[in-house]
Order: sequence, then structure tokens, then C-alpha cells
Amino acid sequence: MTYCVGMVLESGLVLMSDTRTNSGVDNISTFRKLFHWQVPGERMIAVMTAGNLATTQAVVSQLEERTKAPSERDNTLLKGPTMFQVATEIGRLLRATIEDVQRANGDTGKGRFTATIILAGQIAGMQPRLFMIYPEGNFIEASWDTPFFQIGETKYGRPILIRGYDKGMSFEDAVKLLMVSFDSTLKANLSVGLPLDLLVIEKDAFAATHEHRVTADDPYFATISSGWGDALRSAFHSLPPYSFDGES
Amino acid sequence: MTYCVGMVLESGLVLMSDTRTNSGVDNISTFRKLFHWQVPGERMIAVMTAGNLATTQAVVSQLEERTKAPSERDNTLLKGPTMFQVATEIGRLLRATIEDVQRANGDTGKGRFTATIILAGQIAGMQPRLFMIYPEGNFIEASWDTPFFQIGETKYGRPILIRGYDKGMSFEDAVKLLMVSFDSTLKANLSVGLPLDLLVIEKDAFAATHEHRVTADDPYFATISSGWGDALRSAFHSLPPYSFDGES
Repeated sequence: MTYCVGMVLESGLVLMSDTRTNSGVDNISTFRKLFHWQVPGERMIAVMTAGNLATTQAVVSQLEERTKAPSERDNTLLKGPTMFQVATEIGRLLRATIEDVQRANGDTGKGRFTATIILAGQIAGMQPRLFMIYPEGNFIEASWDTPFFQIGETKYGRPILIRGYDKGMSFEDAVKLLMVSFDSTLKANLSVGLPLDLLVIEKDAFAATHEHRVTADDPYFATISSGWGDALRSAFHSLPPYSFDGES
Repeated sequence: MTYCVGMVLESGLVLMSDTRTNSGVDNISTFRKLFHWQVPGERMIAVMTAGNLATTQAVVSQLEERTKAPSERDNTLLKGPTMFQVATEIGRLLRATIEDVQRANGDTGKGRFTATIILAGQIAGMQPRLFMIYPEGNFIEASWDTPFFQIGETKYGRPILIRGYDKGMSFEDAVKLLMVSFDSTLKANLSVGLPLDLLVIEKDAFAATHEHRVTADDPYFATISSGWGDALRSAFHSLPPYSFDGES
């Protein structure tokens, strides 16, 4: 499993992903699922991936044209004139990659090898954009009505995002919110695991404003993880008590 | 979908269930999923059901022997000498009911019509017990290591249960905790819906200590639902801020 969240704020984009991959609970590895590419002053593009690892690695490699010699490569992500076209191209590659391996495996391939991708970025002259790209190759775009996308194990960490998100919040508060959401997920599902990758993309910066890998010994994450339990219990006790007599 | 939670406390058992059933999002109904039977001074038994509604209603009807005239019925739940034997009997009926309808539907029946049941209760001379009964007919029992069971849409409401549960908590606090857990789930999943059914079974009471249906106009639930958002935001702001400079 996986857990990734991409979030649009008024001030830019914030992305966080875990790094655990598993094939059964007895076969666990760490792989990066958050990738980014930039042309300073012109564009900053990031993707996060969930699903079959061979599929997502193949898509990223094709985007970077790793089938060619390094000198002949022409990164698709750095060519698309708009984020919409970048999303279209990623969707096309994603669908084609899944179809190839499904077809090669006949009946046993049906419904397998799928993956989902969150795409975030900004190209000069346009707004920052956030997309969720489905295994079928189509995609949806975030808006202020639905300003964040989750992929993978989305449920445990969703209530706090719904309650805590505010489009005007600072990047620091957004990171704190994501850490709480990830901590709730980590505590409930072994298939989501540390380290976490964090990327903040400030609007019009066309660069990684802040990048950080949260490891098991990260002191801030430890503070959030232990502090959130106490804060939740305080919040719980601040609510009025239930009474057996007051029933309606 | 469904959401039900059964919880063991030192002082007894607390059960809560929603009442929404759906066959597609455009076909929603309200059905009771929490049932109880008692023999004053001797036993108090409750079940909560998730899964195929025809299956769960059939199981409950068979337990009550509704195939017979009322005067000839001999409720299985009121006969079993121990909770373990009651669980065994419910498991046998559940598996047989599922098998019957699957077999009648041939290939199209495979993997369908399944259901899961939470059983809670106490028989005089023994401790209160809580079981989760699987569609295969086998079951597990709660312990102080795992003192609550959830069925249906379990994920959204799980983090607060993990953080908030304490075996020594009062019934009133347990109800408050369940209301928070249900509120988080209701906010995230349309297939879980009000009203909620609540049942508190105090140890050695062999009766429903407290029973309540939480409807859409329940003032306490409204207080919890709106207050929890504020309390969560306060909890969130009480955590130390993230700093871009302090990264490890």
C-alpha cells in the first residue's frame, strides 16, 4: 500500500508521500514515490505514485526517456506547454504501460498492474495546478471545492484533513496537518511506512521551496506523533459529557 | 455500507451501529442493525450486523426461529449455555445462510451475499464477552489487547478509537468516543448514515442499562459534531509549529 497527499493552498502546493512498498507483509521495501523536475524560472513539476511499482517506475522512466542515451533524452515533463498537456501525456503513458503488461499476461493479467498518479506543478504564466490521474488514463483537477487529493490508503488520514484544511493556511501549518494525517495512517496500517518525503512548491518560485525526508528519528515528527495523542485526548475531554438521563 | 463498533470496558459492553443500507447511492434505506435479547437476571445478548441485508435478516430470523409459530419458537440465543456456544451457533447459521444463497445462484453467487456479525453479551456466572463472527462461520474474541471490534466502514473512525479508548473509561465517555468516531465516518462516507443505535450493557445487570436512538435532530450529537471540529482545530494549533529551517 501507499499513502500520498497533494494539496493546493493559496500560496502554492504541498506534497507528502510515504515510501513503503510491499508484496505481502513479509516482503517490505523502501522506494521513493515522490519525484520532481524543474526548469528554473520556467516550471516545477512533481508526481507521486500509488499502485504497482513496476508500472509506476516504468511510467517515470518513459517520461524521462530512459530508453535513450542520456544525451538524446527529451523529458516529456519539461516539454508540455501546459500542465493540462503534461497530465494528458502522463495519463496516456500510464494507460499504455498498464495495458501492455496486462495483455502480456492474458487472463491472469486482468485488473492487475494498475496505478494512480498525483501530478502537481506550475508553468510560468499559469497558476499552480494539481491533478489526479487514473489508471484508465483520464484525470481530474483539484479546485477550491476539492483542494486536495489522496491516493493509496486514504481513509484513516482523511477526517483530520477535512477538518484541518484551510486554503489560506501557511506552508508550515499545512506540513503539520499532513504529518498528523500521516501519523494517524501509520498507526493504523502497517503497509504505510516511514520515511516520508515532503515537497513544498511556492507559487511562482519554479523551484523546490522546501524538501525534506522525515525519517524514523525525525524529532519534529516524533513530537507530532506523541503530542497528537495528548492533544486529541484533551480535545475529547473538552467536549461536553454524555448523560444517560438527557436522551431525547 | 455500515459502521458498527462493539467495545469491552471494565464496567461492561458498549455497542453502536448506524442504520443505513444501500444498493447503489441512489437506493438508500434505514434498517436496524443492532438487536438484543435478554432473560432478566440470567443473560443479555446483542448482535450487530454488516454485509448483505437479506443474509443478516435471515440469520436473525433463524436465531429467533421465525419459521415456527410464535408459541413453538425456541430462541437459540436464549439457550446456549455459554457465549462461546452462542457464537458457534451464530457462526454456523451465518455460514449456512450464505452458502445456501451462493449455491442457488451458481457462478454469479460466488463471493456475494456475505456478512459479518459482532456478538456481545453476558450469561450469569461468566464475564461479559465480545466476538467478531466471520462469513466463514469462525470467530475471534476481544481481549484487553484488542478490546473493540469494528465492522463495515471501519477506517475513518479508527484513529480516534485507537487514541481515545481506555478500558477504565466511564460508559458516558465511551459513548462520547463512539459519537466522535461515528461523526468522522459520517462526514467521509455517504453510505454510513443516521440514525445511530446505542446500547450499553453494564456488567452483571443482564439488561439494557441504556438504549438510545441518535436521530438527525439529536442535540447532543449535534454538539459533538460541531464541537469536535473546533476541538480538533484547537488540538492542531496546540502542537508546535513546523519550521523550514529546523530540518534534520
